[in-house]
Amino acid sequence: MGVSQQNRPYHTPWGYAILVDMTAPTPIRGYTASKDQLLARLRRVEGQVRGIEKMVDDDRYCIDVLTQISAIQAALDKVALGLLDGHARHCMHEGAAEGRADEMATEMMAAVGRLMKRG
Amino acid sequence: MGVSQQNRPYHTPWGYAILVDMTAPTPIRGYTASKDQLLARLRRVEGQVRGIEKMVDDDRYCIDVLTQISAIQAALDKVALGLLDGHARHCMHEGAAEGRADEMATEMMAAVGRLMKRG
Amino acid sequence: MGVSQQNRPYHTPWGYAILVDMTAPTPIRGYTASKDQLLARLRRVEGQVRGIEKMVDDDRYCIDVLTQISAIQAALDKVALGLLDGHARHCMHEGAAEGRADEMATEMMAAVGRLMKRG
Amino acid sequence: MGVSQQNRPYHTPWGYAILVDMTAPTPIRGYTASKDQLLARLRRVEGQVRGIEKMVDDDRYCIDVLTQISAIQAALDKVALGLLDGHARHCMHEGAAEGRADEMATEMMAAVGRLMKRG
Repeated sequence: MGVSQQNRPYHTPWGYAILVDMTAPTPIRGYTASKDQLLARLRRVEGQVRGIEKMVDDDRYCIDVLTQISAIQAALDKVALGLLDGHARHCMHEGAAEGRADEMATEMMAAVGRLMKRG
Repeated sequence: MGVSQQNRPYHTPWGYAILVDMTAPTPIRGYTASKDQLLARLRRVEGQVRGIEKMVDDDRYCIDVLTQISAIQAALDKVALGLLDGHARHCMHEGAAEGRADEMATEMMAAVGRLMKRG
Repeated sequence: MGVSQQNRPYHTPWGYAILVDMTAPTPIRGYTASKDQLLARLRRVEGQVRGIEKMVDDDRYCIDVLTQISAIQAALDKVALGLLDGHARHCMHEGAAEGRADEMATEMMAAVGRLMKRG
Repeated sequence: MGVSQQNRPYHTPWGYAILVDMTAPTPIRGYTASKDQLLARLRRVEGQVRGIEKMVDDDRYCIDVLTQISAIQAALDKVALGLLDGHARHCMHEGAAEGRADEMATEMMAAVGRLMKRG
């Protein structure tokens, strides 16, 4: 998949929700999601893709298939925003403490650029 | 899924590739894909989504997960363009023969608008 | 600007609104806009861009500038959908009458692909 | 324009390029642009919009106009990424020093979400 195999040092491994539960009265913010929520959303996306395969297999109307594709794109955008949010709040915070703030901001902006252009 | 159950009357049911094979020397054009090609692409997208689930499960670096999400969005865009292309060339042609050209152009533009805004 | 200088043969030159006025009870459809409406929208976009220049010049908060940029992108998307709609309904219709339907569908899909990826 | 009039407290007013010049051997990073560069880019975008107005006025081919619109969208995306980058590196840094990191991350993610959906 063209993705580095080692875990990066300043990566908060989706443990955010647990962190929030511990610090108690902190409000749940914007897009940040726990690992379980992310996995649940991704499994739903996987099901939506399978739904489209079935629609194509059943010769369903193209416009209806396109509507479902837009729905998947929207769901993936939400997952991506959840990841970006966690990155901006946690990984970047940790990275900053180690003097890697700039490098991580560059990585994040490249990721945002790819999301805006979709790959 | 909020999608009409009946097959629409002016829908060319992905039979395009077969049509092309019969008319022989016609060049394969732009984005148009056969039903088999569409299903193959969608199965690949399904595999990519499963790959991301594994990445999240393995606590992989957020930026690497985001890169894979952009790749899926690009793949879905290609599937969508393939469907739109088939619609513009075939369904709309048939619809026009029956006086439904306007209605179908409206449907197509709404679909393009949703794709540009992603849902 | 990398744009061909000659007018293309099957281009309905924004005369659509006049056409509609003549055929009277035809409803105004979806995104299709007359030349005057298109020019009015583009002048508004031009004003919005100048507004952003002033915001930057006045050292306004970055997030507020970004909100205005998103508003311009949305306005440009609407202009683009209006043009595409006119193309799908009129230019392609004329092109089809001359046996250029395929070529024009290819051009249109390439344009949709660029709009989805934004350039 | 629906934009707050007061300058926000933690906003680095585009003075970034000057900062870089002073600290000398710091590499120029990713998307960050000075106020002058941003204004130059925006003026170019303004000129591109005027170019499209002329194209429509001259009844130029719709597909050629759409190509120019995609070019403007891409140019605006670059401006937006430049602003986001400056925000992530400077405003957020200053905000963090004052305990506003969370609020600013929320604002930034909302801006990214609007850019992905284009308004």
